[in-house]
Amino acid sequence: MEASFGFSSKPVSVPIRVKSHLSSSSVTNLPLKPGESMAAKWAQKTVVIPAHRRGCHLITPKVLREIEQDLSGFQCGLAHFFLQHTSASLTINENYDSDVQADTETFLNKIVPEGRSAPWRHTLEGPDDMPAHIKSSMFGCSLTIPITEGRLNMGTWQGIWLCEHRDHATPRKIVITLNGM
Amino acid sequence: MEASFGFSSKPVSVPIRVKSHLSSSSVTNLPLKPGESMAAKWAQKTVVIPAHRRGCHLITPKVLREIEQDLSGFQCGLAHFFLQHTSASLTINENYDSDVQADTETFLNKIVPEGRSAPWRHTLEGPDDMPAHIKSSMFGCSLTIPITEGRLNMGTWQGIWLCEHRDHATPRKIVITLNGM
Amino acid sequence: MEASFGFSSKPVSVPIRVKSHLSSSSVTNLPLKPGESMAAKWAQKTVVIPAHRRGCHLITPKVLREIEQDLSGFQCGLAHFFLQHTSASLTINENYDSDVQADTETFLNKIVPEGRSAPWRHTLEGPDDMPAHIKSSMFGCSLTIPITEGRLNMGTWQGIWLCEHRDHATPRKIVITLNGM
Repeated sequence: MEASFGFSSKPVSVPIRVKSHLSSSSVTNLPLKPGESMAAKWAQKTVVIPAHRRGCHLITPKVLREIEQDLSGFQCGLAHFFLQHTSASLTINENYDSDVQADTETFLNKIVPEGRSAPWRHTLEGPDDMPAHIKSSMFGCSLTIPITEGRLNMGTWQGIWLCEHRDHATPRKIVITLNGM
Repeated sequence: MEASFGFSSKPVSVPIRVKSHLSSSSVTNLPLKPGESMAAKWAQKTVVIPAHRRGCHLITPKVLREIEQDLSGFQCGLAHFFLQHTSASLTINENYDSDVQADTETFLNKIVPEGRSAPWRHTLEGPDDMPAHIKSSMFGCSLTIPITEGRLNMGTWQGIWLCEHRDHATPRKIVITLNGM
Repeated sequence: MEASFGFSSKPVSVPIRVKSHLSSSSVTNLPLKPGESMAAKWAQKTVVIPAHRRGCHLITPKVLREIEQDLSGFQCGLAHFFLQHTSASLTINENYDSDVQADTETFLNKIVPEGRSAPWRHTLEGPDDMPAHIKSSMFGCSLTIPITEGRLNMGTWQGIWLCEHRDHATPRKIVITLNGM
């Protein structure tokens, strides 16, 4: 009956048989044994990301700081990230060269017209608001990432981006849900 | 003690401890107690949405009517919505000003050419069909939304949109899967 | 031993009932009985897709060959596909007429500028690299598909596409996670 949020490595005190298996390809060797006994676990947390200027931002380190202790308790599962806003987005992209972030922002501004030439009806909240809604649906507001052996199982060059589409940004909330065993 | 990955239909027959916890950030206080013992639950349902005219439509109330009784049984989990079509899409966006829906439809029509000037090979099903396929991949056909204390944990202004990309729409099927505890 | 789908807050202390329910709409009859007792299961596997030329490719058969044996053990659940790359994407679209794939590639190339006229800073990895990153965020790198009675519950015309956005492609890794009961 641990009170902490941490995952207990102690065996569940009565025999249970949640069947589980992690098979491996020739490339990645995932050592979970078949037939291992574990119960499904859930963890959920709302994280607040401080206001970021308009543009695309790598937030992997920030996100990991919030969840890595919990993550380490999952051998296999899924991590879900849900941004509770309609004028920003979450996407997975390059984690190395920040020019990729700048170029993506350039693309978004090119593809979604803003200002006098734009055909929008919804303008009460400023010229950047309707474009922000469109960009949010283009990239989406949620991500699901596999968990493998206590870590987010992303590729070498993948990172989590928060894309802020408003000029005068506010803090943004992300509901993070971990599920696995 | 099966070693295989196979699925056993035999009922679990010993007490199990499904560890579960819902931690809270400084902003949102989610009162699930740590160490609570609960088993994972699944629910799945196919919902038919009557034909909507071409454009973006807020369907949150309709969807909630179909699932809220089941939803209320989940303290923590994920709700997955899967549109079984390739010429419509699901997205999350503004739930208040319907101009946002109209402007988004304007954007989609601007970005994806249709009619004589369009370069498409796939034209047998009408001039609006190939653009519909493209829009479907741009916005996507599925959504995953966190469940917290029996409710979809969306932001204040977020709603579920069905975007119908065909001129002569038909009813659309959504497979809804709830998973949690 | 509740037969209803409701949530019990009492600690589980007796042979457990992993409550599960698969309700049906008037359209699809999904025969899982409510109250059936099953434990949650997880399976995870990394699959390598051989290099495909630039463009959109239907990979449903390839993916199914890798997972169908495991899939058949799930009555109800979710299948998650995660591409570990930032210059390719996964999407769901038409599985029949390959012109739809060709037209989608035409659209992507039209919408994301490439070569001398493109405004990108990130050019070190070739003129097709920055456009590839943008396309990857437009379509996304992951999919979640419902599992119903041992099969991916997609619509009649839906298929899984791997969209390769690089000119000189390499094999691509997909982490597949199955979760259900």
